[in-house]
Amino acid sequence: MKRSNKRPSRKAKRSALKPSRYEIRLAGSGGQGIITAARILAEAISAGGEKYVCQTQSYGPEARGGASKAEIVVSYEPIDYPKAMNPDLLLAMNQTSCDSYFSDLKPYGLLIVDSTLVRQIPISRAVALPFTDIAREKIGKELVANMVALGAVVRLSQVVAPGIAEEVIAQKVPKAFVEMNIKAFNAGIEAASQVDIDALPASAFSSEEEEL
Amino acid sequence: MKRSNKRPSRKAKRSALKPSRYEIRLAGSGGQGIITAARILAEAISAGGEKYVCQTQSYGPEARGGASKAEIVVSYEPIDYPKAMNPDLLLAMNQTSCDSYFSDLKPYGLLIVDSTLVRQIPISRAVALPFTDIAREKIGKELVANMVALGAVVRLSQVVAPGIAEEVIAQKVPKAFVEMNIKAFNAGIEAASQVDIDALPASAFSSEEEEL
Repeated sequence: MKRSNKRPSRKAKRSALKPSRYEIRLAGSGGQGIITAARILAEAISAGGEKYVCQTQSYGPEARGGASKAEIVVSYEPIDYPKAMNPDLLLAMNQTSCDSYFSDLKPYGLLIVDSTLVRQIPISRAVALPFTDIAREKIGKELVANMVALGAVVRLSQVVAPGIAEEVIAQKVPKAFVEMNIKAFNAGIEAASQVDIDALPASAFSSEEEEL
Repeated sequence: MKRSNKRPSRKAKRSALKPSRYEIRLAGSGGQGIITAARILAEAISAGGEKYVCQTQSYGPEARGGASKAEIVVSYEPIDYPKAMNPDLLLAMNQTSCDSYFSDLKPYGLLIVDSTLVRQIPISRAVALPFTDIAREKIGKELVANMVALGAVVRLSQVVAPGIAEEVIAQKVPKAFVEMNIKAFNAGIEAASQVDIDALPASAFSSEEEEL
C-alpha cells in the first residue's frame, strides 16, 4: 500500500479506505445475521492485508427490543478505541437502525439501506438496495439478506477484495449452506455494481454539491 | 440485583461479577473456536439480565501467527471502553496466550488454562483443566474443547446461569452439532465443579495469603 503525506483531495477523502481509520457500523434487527456478517467482514479485511481490525458488538438492555449492532474499525495503526464513533459507512437493515444511527455518520460517510425494510431514507448520500427482496427472489431465502448486504458493502466500500470475503464465508458458514451464502454475496456485489457512487451528493447532510 | 455502597470485602472483590465492570479475555490459537465461545458467552450474559455487554475481537498483523483473542466486558452501566484492559478472568487455551496475557490480570483475577496445551503455569491463582483431553476423551472431538472451556468459564465465573448458555449454544451452533456442543459444555461444567476456587491463593501475583 502506498501512503502519501499530501493532504488528501475531496475525492480521496470520500474514497473507501483512508489510511488513518475507517469505521463501519452494521445494524438491524436480531435474527438478520448482522453479527455474522460483521465477523466475516472483519476476518476478510484482516486476511486481506497489513491492517489492524477490531470488531465489536454491544448488547444492552436496549438489545432486548431485538436490535442488533456490530462495528468494525480498520486502521493501519494499532487501534486504541475499537468503537465506531463516526462511521464512514453505515449499513441499516431496518428503519429503526437507520433512524437511530444515520446522524452519527461522517459528513462524507455513506449510508447503505435495505430498501425492502427501510422506507424513509433520511439523507441523500445513501444507497438503497432491496437486500431482503433480492435474497427472497434470487436465492429463495430471506435469511441470506445479510450476505446480499455484505456483498454490497464489500463492493461499495472496497475495503476488501470480494474473493477474500468469499473464502472467509466458505470457512465460517456450515458446509451445507456455503453455496447459498456465496450466491447471495455475489447477488449483493452485482446489485451494488449498478450504483454510481460518484453521482451521490458529496455530503450526507447537505443536498447542495459543494464542489467549487 | 442488590447494590450497596459499602466498600466490598476481599471475598466480595474476588467473587464473580462485580457491580462496576467485569472483564473477560479468551485467548488461544486460531481454529480453537475462541471467538465462537466469546460470542456465545456474551449473548448468554446479555440474555441473563439487565447488564451491558460488549464483545470485541481484534485482528492485526500479529494475528497471522495464528493467535486468536476475544474479549467481553460486562457492566451494570453503559460501557465506554469495550476492551479488557485488566481482565478479571483470563482463559488461555495455549502456552503463547498464557505467557502473553497473564500479567494483564487483575491482582485478584483468575487464570484458567487448558492444561493439555499449557504446561507452564506462571501464577498460582490458576485453574488448570485439560479441556482438549476432555473433548477428545469424553466427546470424541478435540474441536469442541472450546465448549468444554466455556463450561468451565461459566461455572467458575458465575457470570451467567449454565441453562442460559445452553440455550444460546442451541441457537448459534449448526443443528447437527448442537448435542455434541452441549455435551462438551456440560463436561466443562462438571470438570470445573471439582475445583475449590476458595482454596486458591487470593492474589494472582503472590503466593502469600494476605488475609489479616
